[in-house]
Amino acid sequence: MQLSRRPVLGVVGAGQLARMLQQAAIGIDVDLRLLAASASDSAALVIPSTIVGDERGLPDLQRLADQVDVMTFDHEHVPTDHLHTLQGAGAVLRPGPHALPFATDKSVMRRGLRGFGLPVPTFRVIEDASALPQAVQEVGGWPVMLKAARGGYDGRGVWLVEGPDDAGDAFRARTPVVVEQRVPFVRELSAVVARSPSGQAVAYPVAESVQREGICVEVLAPAPGLGEDTALAAQRLALEVARDIDVVGVLAVELFELPDGSLLVNELAMRPHNTAHWTIDGAVTSQFENHIRGVLDLPLGSPRPLAPAVVMVNILAGQATEVHQALPHVMAHEPEARIHLYGKQPRPGRKIGHVTALGNDVDELRARARRVAEGISGQALA
Amino acid sequence: MQLSRRPVLGVVGAGQLARMLQQAAIGIDVDLRLLAASASDSAALVIPSTIVGDERGLPDLQRLADQVDVMTFDHEHVPTDHLHTLQGAGAVLRPGPHALPFATDKSVMRRGLRGFGLPVPTFRVIEDASALPQAVQEVGGWPVMLKAARGGYDGRGVWLVEGPDDAGDAFRARTPVVVEQRVPFVRELSAVVARSPSGQAVAYPVAESVQREGICVEVLAPAPGLGEDTALAAQRLALEVARDIDVVGVLAVELFELPDGSLLVNELAMRPHNTAHWTIDGAVTSQFENHIRGVLDLPLGSPRPLAPAVVMVNILAGQATEVHQALPHVMAHEPEARIHLYGKQPRPGRKIGHVTALGNDVDELRARARRVAEGISGQALA
Repeated sequence: MQLSRRPVLGVVGAGQLARMLQQAAIGIDVDLRLLAASASDSAALVIPSTIVGDERGLPDLQRLADQVDVMTFDHEHVPTDHLHTLQGAGAVLRPGPHALPFATDKSVMRRGLRGFGLPVPTFRVIEDASALPQAVQEVGGWPVMLKAARGGYDGRGVWLVEGPDDAGDAFRARTPVVVEQRVPFVRELSAVVARSPSGQAVAYPVAESVQREGICVEVLAPAPGLGEDTALAAQRLALEVARDIDVVGVLAVELFELPDGSLLVNELAMRPHNTAHWTIDGAVTSQFENHIRGVLDLPLGSPRPLAPAVVMVNILAGQATEVHQALPHVMAHEPEARIHLYGKQPRPGRKIGHVTALGNDVDELRARARRVAEGISGQALA
Repeated sequence: MQLSRRPVLGVVGAGQLARMLQQAAIGIDVDLRLLAASASDSAALVIPSTIVGDERGLPDLQRLADQVDVMTFDHEHVPTDHLHTLQGAGAVLRPGPHALPFATDKSVMRRGLRGFGLPVPTFRVIEDASALPQAVQEVGGWPVMLKAARGGYDGRGVWLVEGPDDAGDAFRARTPVVVEQRVPFVRELSAVVARSPSGQAVAYPVAESVQREGICVEVLAPAPGLGEDTALAAQRLALEVARDIDVVGVLAVELFELPDGSLLVNELAMRPHNTAHWTIDGAVTSQFENHIRGVLDLPLGSPRPLAPAVVMVNILAGQATEVHQALPHVMAHEPEARIHLYGKQPRPGRKIGHVTALGNDVDELRARARRVAEGISGQALA
């Protein structure tokens, strides 16, 4: 698409990803329009053209589609049927309905990647609890991971199960369940790439993602001590996934690093991803700008990092109900820290922002970013 | 001011400076509200809370003041009388009406700085053409610079005059005229600092500003080959100016570097300045975020540059009436370039964006940024 005017990009969903897309969109003069559940959603606060409506309902999706050149997504909650209907009616969806199920349905993703010959944990997909014993046996016995095929995020919809008596929760969601060997991984890595419809792609440095209770708490880029071969393998894997399922925009491939250095794919996300928020401050072109460039079929920008080490720490709300009171203190403590707030009401455990630090020494950067995140989240400054 | 909620910052004027302030405001969750002359102004396109009204008229200024914690400025066109009235009615103006005349009136600035013992060109202020011959004699004879005390920008309101017959234009604007020696400068430098009400201040590296016909076309940061002593003297000078006239927010001090390395103050600006646009991509904390931090009395962020050399080139519109058609070409050519578009309708010579490049080799960066700027402005790619 080559336009002789400002491109108009629709975003379904108004969380922090859409908010950070707006910062990038302002820079390259892209008119961002939003479908938000509420006018007080994170991104709706900062984007003038917002439809407040039902992000999962066809009529409001169609209203957004009618006024934009391309539609993209802040989250993975739009029913696939609607995506096909919108596309059938002429909407340009990026990523498209052929690709999105790989991010929204773990059974599609696992089977699809295995079909492409890509490395995934041993798994079975079952429909109800009666099939569990045999599936467990086939993936290597207890303990196993049970994952609701649809609807999970940030640790929800995933259970580590030690035996048959603990498995009940997984079958309440009324979606198929993926039964998976418990992978003895060393750490989690994230390979983030951006791809355009014409097939151009760029790969960001592979990052280490530190999780606590299924939630990403810290990201270290590049992953400390990661061998060059493993890093290249991870980037190549992500580029292959992007090509094989024809992703447009940002694709995050979350990986398990095994003791022998080999890799298995854990999760996919087809939107800007928490494990690459560090690119806003730490790379020549952020994942947000490259997502926009990709979905608008503009040439992608350089993913080159701006420092030898970049650390991102999420701000998870603590007991404090207000974050602005903490700002003077943390800003005075850490003038080098880059602070990002999402404009979200703090509730304990909710992601309300992130902090980035750039430099040479990962441990020092980590300590600095943690101090700021803890200070804002309502914990005491160390 | 320590708030237990999101701060609300009013901006008078809706040009590219307000637009770039919005990118920074989103990051630290500051609610930016605008007074714009038109809903299609650069910043009004990207800020939800915009009053469309008269930026120089007291009623609309008061409407903005009524809904914000602090008011700041995109330009220098608000009458000083109105500033005093607003302040008298309780508005918090930053910078304040005691400081702003140093940026809006060249006669106030020249006399004020001389009064503080700061280095300025030899000058006289006259009210009409009859006083010109004596003033010329007192500043050292023809040729002289004539500068309208108020209302000039980007080369307007400034005349190099070789003799008495050429001086007519300067006396048509009905403001006092500053008659000034023509300074034999080597180049122009810019020392940009940010200061908070409590007196904390940070200084960005001193940049070289390359002008063509009175318009800034390129900025090189740090200024190539600038001696450490001169750089420190320039930063100290800017910090002194900021302190002496109690500036809050960003202050840009444009300087003449003389053949012997000494410095004279040319101009002051009390807002984010074109000569520090490079800080968006090239410094830990941009001038836009530090302006916001300063005016809200938040601790300032680090001005540390992210690369040994940063070059910014302005995109001045050429004959092309549309910039988006050029984007695919320049983005494909230069994936390392950072492109900033202001959403402004191109008119020949109008500043419609800028390009930043970071790295080691100034000449290479300059060539890269120029290629992109020329490509977008409608000139042929080299």
